[in-house]
Amino acid sequence: MEKLYVIKIGGNIIDDDQKLVAFLKDFAAVKGLKVLVHGGGKLVTKMASQLGIEQQMIDGRRITDAETLKIVTMVYAGLINKNIVAQLQGNGCNALGLCGADGNTIQSHKRGSNSPLGVGGIDYGFVGDVDTVNTSLLQSLLAQQIAIVLAPITHDLNGLLLNTNADTIAQETAKALSTIYNVELIYSFEKAGVLLDINDDTSVISSLTPIYYQELKEQHRIFAGMIPKLDNAFAAINNGVSKVIIGKAEQLQELISGNSGTAIINV
Amino acid sequence: MEKLYVIKIGGNIIDDDQKLVAFLKDFAAVKGLKVLVHGGGKLVTKMASQLGIEQQMIDGRRITDAETLKIVTMVYAGLINKNIVAQLQGNGCNALGLCGADGNTIQSHKRGSNSPLGVGGIDYGFVGDVDTVNTSLLQSLLAQQIAIVLAPITHDLNGLLLNTNADTIAQETAKALSTIYNVELIYSFEKAGVLLDINDDTSVISSLTPIYYQELKEQHRIFAGMIPKLDNAFAAINNGVSKVIIGKAEQLQELISGNSGTAIINV
Repeated sequence: MEKLYVIKIGGNIIDDDQKLVAFLKDFAAVKGLKVLVHGGGKLVTKMASQLGIEQQMIDGRRITDAETLKIVTMVYAGLINKNIVAQLQGNGCNALGLCGADGNTIQSHKRGSNSPLGVGGIDYGFVGDVDTVNTSLLQSLLAQQIAIVLAPITHDLNGLLLNTNADTIAQETAKALSTIYNVELIYSFEKAGVLLDINDDTSVISSLTPIYYQELKEQHRIFAGMIPKLDNAFAAINNGVSKVIIGKAEQLQELISGNSGTAIINV
Repeated sequence: MEKLYVIKIGGNIIDDDQKLVAFLKDFAAVKGLKVLVHGGGKLVTKMASQLGIEQQMIDGRRITDAETLKIVTMVYAGLINKNIVAQLQGNGCNALGLCGADGNTIQSHKRGSNSPLGVGGIDYGFVGDVDTVNTSLLQSLLAQQIAIVLAPITHDLNGLLLNTNADTIAQETAKALSTIYNVELIYSFEKAGVLLDINDDTSVISSLTPIYYQELKEQHRIFAGMIPKLDNAFAAINNGVSKVIIGKAEQLQELISGNSGTAIINV
């Protein structure tokens, strides 16, 4: 099977023009088939504040009300997605941006307040949990040597756009495409990998098995914010993705070559 | 050659939720291959005002400064484009939204202040004049029975997004695709067609030749705001597009069947 990279970039890169420019240059230089998944950074919060739309957060998660859905659609699928695409084009990488509604690429359903993900019966608003990733369109674009740039907006096939976690989109897309390609999934963010000491970038765990992960969680040695990302990483590696790496966005080439970051292992 | 419809919708439909819902239902029902080109309506002006970004207009044309470019990118390529796509999906029409940067679909260059289009040496800012429409990607999507939804944002292939007139995008796209398809171009807007009396919707000119157009212009009987649209329409009909119709968005089916609107004739 042909190799395909699914690369997620974290919000801190989006928020920093210089870092983003450098990252996109590196991404453009990655050989072969590739998908970039981006989140949103602080731009949505900033825009909401400028527009006077109050943001409700519960346990660090944004509640997506109707006005906030408009903002995330504008910022994620518009401003960020199209700027990334234009910059990749400027770096000689033919790229194309999609949200989940485009070509029905990623279909989801609105998370109910009684869903297991709606912890404690919280209604997260216009938030979508992924049902299916349609690979045929993605395959046809990849076959044209087009790099796909995915914004974290999905739809329910009934006319509703839904805000969806970008780590989850990366995981679901990687899983779905692993039936066709040899997929490597890279979660790039501000840290050098999964750290034993959150304040020490040299404490990177080089490989993480499910048993070790369980141990670290029980010892409360995993930073709470990492748990959803790691759950996504294990879901990917357990469902056909051949390699999952978590590490620093500034070291994309080293993450790809296996010389940096944390490898997620499914044994 | 297979028939293809390129349909432009005007801003007044975008501004009116109910009209947009009805239009998209009609568009979804159009049989065969189709491209929808949308403008922006009043949303950009509203957003700019909410964000406190002053809009400079010269002769009714917006000057696109750096902050305004961000807003048009968000609103056109994000909010409007993705809502149209999601609604079409909800109507059973598999649609996919693109801006010109996506897959390098529409390449343009920044209009110089000394360009003939920069009347009187006006610098319109981040405005792009179209150089090329790349048909191979569009063709591959159309072959997958995907309706394409084009936002009026292009790029210069050097990393710069540019604001581009939606009527021009419709014209350039129709022209480029007429080498592959039998293209009919429909400009739908708030009027029933080209009117002899701007206040009388029954005064529709059923067909307009270049000579008649010249006459009407000399007699100042063409509303100034219609002239760029008509220039676009004649450019299309003179360059391979088989049929150009101008008329009311609410009568899309009648425009297609030839029972409404103004036909632009190249003899």
